[in-house]
Amino acid sequence: MPGYSQRLNDRILSCRTPALVGIDPRWDWLPADVRSAAEARSSNVLERTALGFEAFSKQLIDIVSPLVPAVKPQVAFFEQLGVAGFQALHSVIRYARKSGLIVIADAKRGDIGTTAEAYADAWLAGEDPEAAPWSADALTINPYLGTDSLEPFVKLAAKRGAGLYVLVRTSNPGAAEFQDRVSDSQPLYCTVAATVQKLSESTRSQDQTFGCVGAVVGATWPTQLQELRQQMPAVPLLIPGYGAQGGTSADTAGAFNSDGFGAVVNSSRGINFAWQRKPYAEQFGEARWQDAIAAATRDMIRDLAENTPAGTL
Amino acid sequence: MPGYSQRLNDRILSCRTPALVGIDPRWDWLPADVRSAAEARSSNVLERTALGFEAFSKQLIDIVSPLVPAVKPQVAFFEQLGVAGFQALHSVIRYARKSGLIVIADAKRGDIGTTAEAYADAWLAGEDPEAAPWSADALTINPYLGTDSLEPFVKLAAKRGAGLYVLVRTSNPGAAEFQDRVSDSQPLYCTVAATVQKLSESTRSQDQTFGCVGAVVGATWPTQLQELRQQMPAVPLLIPGYGAQGGTSADTAGAFNSDGFGAVVNSSRGINFAWQRKPYAEQFGEARWQDAIAAATRDMIRDLAENTPAGTL
Repeated sequence: MPGYSQRLNDRILSCRTPALVGIDPRWDWLPADVRSAAEARSSNVLERTALGFEAFSKQLIDIVSPLVPAVKPQVAFFEQLGVAGFQALHSVIRYARKSGLIVIADAKRGDIGTTAEAYADAWLAGEDPEAAPWSADALTINPYLGTDSLEPFVKLAAKRGAGLYVLVRTSNPGAAEFQDRVSDSQPLYCTVAATVQKLSESTRSQDQTFGCVGAVVGATWPTQLQELRQQMPAVPLLIPGYGAQGGTSADTAGAFNSDGFGAVVNSSRGINFAWQRKPYAEQFGEARWQDAIAAATRDMIRDLAENTPAGTL
Repeated sequence: MPGYSQRLNDRILSCRTPALVGIDPRWDWLPADVRSAAEARSSNVLERTALGFEAFSKQLIDIVSPLVPAVKPQVAFFEQLGVAGFQALHSVIRYARKSGLIVIADAKRGDIGTTAEAYADAWLAGEDPEAAPWSADALTINPYLGTDSLEPFVKLAAKRGAGLYVLVRTSNPGAAEFQDRVSDSQPLYCTVAATVQKLSESTRSQDQTFGCVGAVVGATWPTQLQELRQQMPAVPLLIPGYGAQGGTSADTAGAFNSDGFGAVVNSSRGINFAWQRKPYAEQFGEARWQDAIAAATRDMIRDLAENTPAGTL
């Protein structure tokens, strides 16, 4: 069975880009046609919102699946809609996988012992979408509870050909508060990074560069990104913070090895709602929102190719 | 509108105990009668497991609702069952609230910005169960991403009369690894505790001892528990690790103020599956599993009353 990183890298190579598209639907920002269609199908607010999210996400998937290797649904926006939201998420993830996309569920889960096992079993389908109810290829997880809380995830991920991305240095303004606390001349995120490297190395095949345990490091911290790329040679990175959050492609350059592998760079709002933003608002407008999404995705791919080692893919 | 801590303390006072019962169903451990009934209703594994979880949880609620102030459903075990699991969880939480119980959803969520807002909006119903799809009174959250990731939760909790429990010092063996890293002579969990105290103080009414932001501190660390009670006077505590995880009532004594308020102590497996354990296995057996649950709950209540300041309630 090919491991997660091998499957991801195969997709990256065939798309020739490390661009990752977030699936982050918000009702107020959905195109009017998607909202009206959903409103016609249900008068219940949670249900119609979930229907709108599902329809929008599937159209987004249709547009980006020929262009990028992977998508990252933000679980919180679906969870906010109760059971109807989870029904939509379930359908969206299956649809993305059938479209050939790698699906990274951004759920930031974390717990101990058998509870961690339950979360892992819930999300980490790995190679076979039927192996877990939430059918994800990979999952984001939180390290605060310690290595013993990460191990059940790693064990199951390795078994199912699934991947993990441990939060190491997040993209928010307050990330430094706890993550940069220095002990024995090392900030916390470097201590966590050492753990992640060790865990990923333990899952790595000899013929592969990367294991199945990745790390989340924000594009908003380019210095740390470069440093962490060096510190974690067996760890694939997930880089949020590009675009709407202020990170540029040049900021992410340090996340890649010279062959262009080693990271996926995420954009959510900048792609999902491209028609509301310059220059796509003028060029396409709401009526051609799908074309705006396609153009924004192609522009991101070009930007990464021009300004990072991913251009060599 | 009464705040979360006021509502919780009213319930603690009327039950005269700080005992909190975890709702942690596992299929293999359910009583045979519950499993057969579920199997008769569905042949789909996830569906029948969810039906079993729902039926068991509701019977558990019927038994403990006259005895204890609150229950803590472990979200992971429901999430593991896909959409069917969330349908069951939804029904279980509503049922618990209708039974007068305070519901603390143990989901350990955490994210940044508008994503944190979405999780808060999903879970924190507070006083009105209809105010959020998941209808919880309170939610456990993870602090790794920083204070700015906690603030959206605090803001909504204060608005809706809901509560939060931030992971500070967890009950697992590996908790010390990151949480005890010392910087400027202070372990990380004390830095997080200072933040939690500050956040909770900002939500406290002048006539109340506690704000709406609580902390999770494991019973398995009695010294830290006592220290944190002092360091966080405005913070209600949630103490996991009693019973099956090895913590005793004496270990939790330091978590209380002299009036017996200040903490809820959780037992999950020791209550849920009491009939599989000494001395209840011999006394009741599987046929009288409900009586075993009632006896284990009463024994826990007595144990806490005899060995902690909660005896003065």
